Amino acid sequence: MSGGLEALSGIRPPDEDVARATARLLDAKTKPPGSLGRLEDLACRLAAIRGEVLVDPLSPSIVVAAADHGVVSEGVSPYPQEVTGQMLANFATGGAAVSVLAREAGARLVVVDAGVIEPPVIEGVRPEVVDGVRGTGNIAVGPAMTPHVALEMIDRGALLATELADDGIGVLAVGDMGIGNTTVATALCAALLPADPLQTCGRGTGLDEGGVARKVDVVRRALDANALGAEGADPLVTLVSLGGLEIAFLTGVILGAAFRRMPVLLDGFVTGAAALVASAIAPDSAGSMVAATRSPEPGHALVLERLGLEPLLDLGLRLGEGAGASLALPLVRSAIAILTDMATFEAAGVSRA
Amino acid sequence: MSGGLEALSGIRPPDEDVARATARLLDAKTKPPGSLGRLEDLACRLAAIRGEVLVDPLSPSIVVAAADHGVVSEGVSPYPQEVTGQMLANFATGGAAVSVLAREAGARLVVVDAGVIEPPVIEGVRPEVVDGVRGTGNIAVGPAMTPHVALEMIDRGALLATELADDGIGVLAVGDMGIGNTTVATALCAALLPADPLQTCGRGTGLDEGGVARKVDVVRRALDANALGAEGADPLVTLVSLGGLEIAFLTGVILGAAFRRMPVLLDGFVTGAAALVASAIAPDSAGSMVAATRSPEPGHALVLERLGLEPLLDLGLRLGEGAGASLALPLVRSAIAILTDMATFEAAGVSRA
Repeated sequence: MSGGLEALSGIRPPDEDVARATARLLDAKTKPPGSLGRLEDLACRLAAIRGEVLVDPLSPSIVVAAADHGVVSEGVSPYPQEVTGQMLANFATGGAAVSVLAREAGARLVVVDAGVIEPPVIEGVRPEVVDGVRGTGNIAVGPAMTPHVALEMIDRGALLATELADDGIGVLAVGDMGIGNTTVATALCAALLPADPLQTCGRGTGLDEGGVARKVDVVRRALDANALGAEGADPLVTLVSLGGLEIAFLTGVILGAAFRRMPVLLDGFVTGAAALVASAIAPDSAGSMVAATRSPEPGHALVLERLGLEPLLDLGLRLGEGAGASLALPLVRSAIAILTDMATFEAAGVSRA
Repeated sequence: MSGGLEALSGIRPPDEDVARATARLLDAKTKPPGSLGRLEDLACRLAAIRGEVLVDPLSPSIVVAAADHGVVSEGVSPYPQEVTGQMLANFATGGAAVSVLAREAGARLVVVDAGVIEPPVIEGVRPEVVDGVRGTGNIAVGPAMTPHVALEMIDRGALLATELADDGIGVLAVGDMGIGNTTVATALCAALLPADPLQTCGRGTGLDEGGVARKVDVVRRALDANALGAEGADPLVTLVSLGGLEIAFLTGVILGAAFRRMPVLLDGFVTGAAALVASAIAPDSAGSMVAATRSPEPGHALVLERLGLEPLLDLGLRLGEGAGASLALPLVRSAIAILTDMATFEAAGVSRA
């Protein structure tokens, strides 16, 4: 099988026997049991995802996907839509936060055009555009995309994850860009959790109080226009109705990562929405997810709770792009290093309690 | 001046003009203002400490100091005292958590014997022992050390920081090792904050509830035996009465770092106690401190509040050694990288809000 959408049935949960064996190994290391706290939990989780106690160092890649959103016509962002394409260029030429943080983390940055209206003509951007669809419909009045486009985008995301795994990548970090996409993520979460839009709406990257109220109204209209209510919904129907092209693509990346047993570091609220869609499609995929950062967006806490994830970092990031996921990559490296490189009490001749 | 104790009068607070100029520079970068959250605050703080907006990459060093404590005769730790010396060897031979994490962070590890009773005969350990004093007196019955030893240890710590600065090191992380030293840190904090020992006593690296109660009793007796009460106390007198040799040494390292404008990453509760002593001796030294991790020890929150610090990480670490401080070094690198390497809106041709 090629690792695209049809790989869904091959997704397995992390190996809990491996997690327990890893915990025992950590208890033999020269430190009081559990004294490295969540770094030990992370090591056990990574080992369980990989399915082997002594995990090899995981070569990291950051996938940042960008697309445009019809809902910007509702005035949900202070930034003009052209910024999506401009930032795509900035990712590829190395000046964006995620470009800088990818270099710091020693990670391969994959910049994906998942449907930007004004894409830059530039090397280093990977086009993943289906049937020429650039940008979604305005969800406040109707569906975001067709079912065909949604499935194709998921498939392409999953294939990218498979391609990276074949290339020797062992851990993914995911990031998003798209003016207006916190509104889309809010709508997706409201429908999938389900939750009242008042509970999931926040300032995004720069709204004031009036802007947040407008966003709540837009999300309510989007749920009504697409006949999605408080009773929960089918994840694919919801994605078609309310999604973004980059969110569909990242959903595929997350599912593909789970299929290939690659831990996937989630960034903030928008990648959280993609993870929520992925876990609704394939519940066992949630086992491969690691929450990198806590977003100040109020909906993010609800998403994390649903996914059973506790973020590694809480630095008040609200940028997206994969910046938070990139910042957590050194913790992944360190978690594996304590597992593989620390001495045991016996080897080091250290007395136990 | 050589940078030892006599450098105290040369310690200056961070340059707030530089902090403001750094914040303005960050606002010109391709991201919504403030959207990198505490990473931006960290960048401003680092720049202010260094006194220059465009901070050069800071070459990191981790200083871990170990010493023994007479108070272990009161049964305050589940580990035998010999572990201090055994772990000192483990640090130097590369098998301890901090050894592994130092390699991961690309940091120079300096392993200091500040007065271990059974020191390993091994290369890679730097002896900093004054007048052959190895281990402190039992603080539950009298003073830990003489004023001469305390001042000499501070001086030596400050000289090490100066030596590292002269060697091109730009940022320090500090760590501690010493069986029994969370009891000593608890006593120091109780006297200096001041606070009731009940508020500052925790499980250390492995006590049960009965052990914690015993520790509270030991700390009360230490305060009584040294005539230190709830009215606050002179920091040097307190250090002489209740301190540890590694804590005195690390106090000097922190003061020396502040003098040379090197940011110093504090680890957990024990280095927090050293920082509390340092800030009581030279209040402006607190400006150079960065809290790396939040310790589960209840006294740590009180120390951080007093120092005005909010930790970067909260991973439930209770190891000491500088493990937490090491884990925060990549955040320091990344904070400087966004400042120096990110494009501005103008340079990248990205539209503003």
